[in-house]
Amino acid sequence: MTDPIAIDETERLIASDKVEGTRVYNREGDKLGSVMNFMVNKRSGKAEYAVLEFGGIFGIGSEHYPIPWEMLDYDQETGGYVVDLDKEKLEGAPSYRDKRPRWDDIYGQQVFGYYGLG
Amino acid sequence: MTDPIAIDETERLIASDKVEGTRVYNREGDKLGSVMNFMVNKRSGKAEYAVLEFGGIFGIGSEHYPIPWEMLDYDQETGGYVVDLDKEKLEGAPSYRDKRPRWDDIYGQQVFGYYGLG
Repeated sequence: MTDPIAIDETERLIASDKVEGTRVYNREGDKLGSVMNFMVNKRSGKAEYAVLEFGGIFGIGSEHYPIPWEMLDYDQETGGYVVDLDKEKLEGAPSYRDKRPRWDDIYGQQVFGYYGLG
Repeated sequence: MTDPIAIDETERLIASDKVEGTRVYNREGDKLGSVMNFMVNKRSGKAEYAVLEFGGIFGIGSEHYPIPWEMLDYDQETGGYVVDLDKEKLEGAPSYRDKRPRWDDIYGQQVFGYYGLG
């Protein structure tokens, strides 16, 4: 058997397809949702947004919350991400259901601004 | 219908799950394989390796070639990645089949060094 840690994850690196589906909690331990995917800058290779998903069944009708990648802390013990964010703050955040955002500068200012990372 | 471009990709950003499965060509137009996944630095959010896959059937028995992310150029027209790499160079590159690498510094030096990006 191969060691799953050696496949998907080390202290420093994590595989993109392991990030997708990873659960996200806040500091109080409330589950906020899970990572649907993340948006990567094509040129620099840097992840800019993680798209948090919750609600809905099997991805249908679920709400999507793009959050700045830098807000995520990975907790190797639980295998989940932790963000410093209460549920109410998240519920008021920029989100989308079916109509996807344009991911342009205006949208970026809106999202990063909301989280005080303008 | 939603515009797939608006979902997965803009001029600047691309969704992680769109990168996975994207075909990779060299400058001569030879198909080298496709991206299985990519390894992201947990702290900085920066993609370090793209894992190129080829051979095998449905992922069984296929060979995996981690290449430095910075080698990839995305070609919006074909929807594929282009790398400056001939097939022979790739075939001699560090790769793995079942036993996954440790992704540690030594491995990094081996891979980045092979491509002259030490």
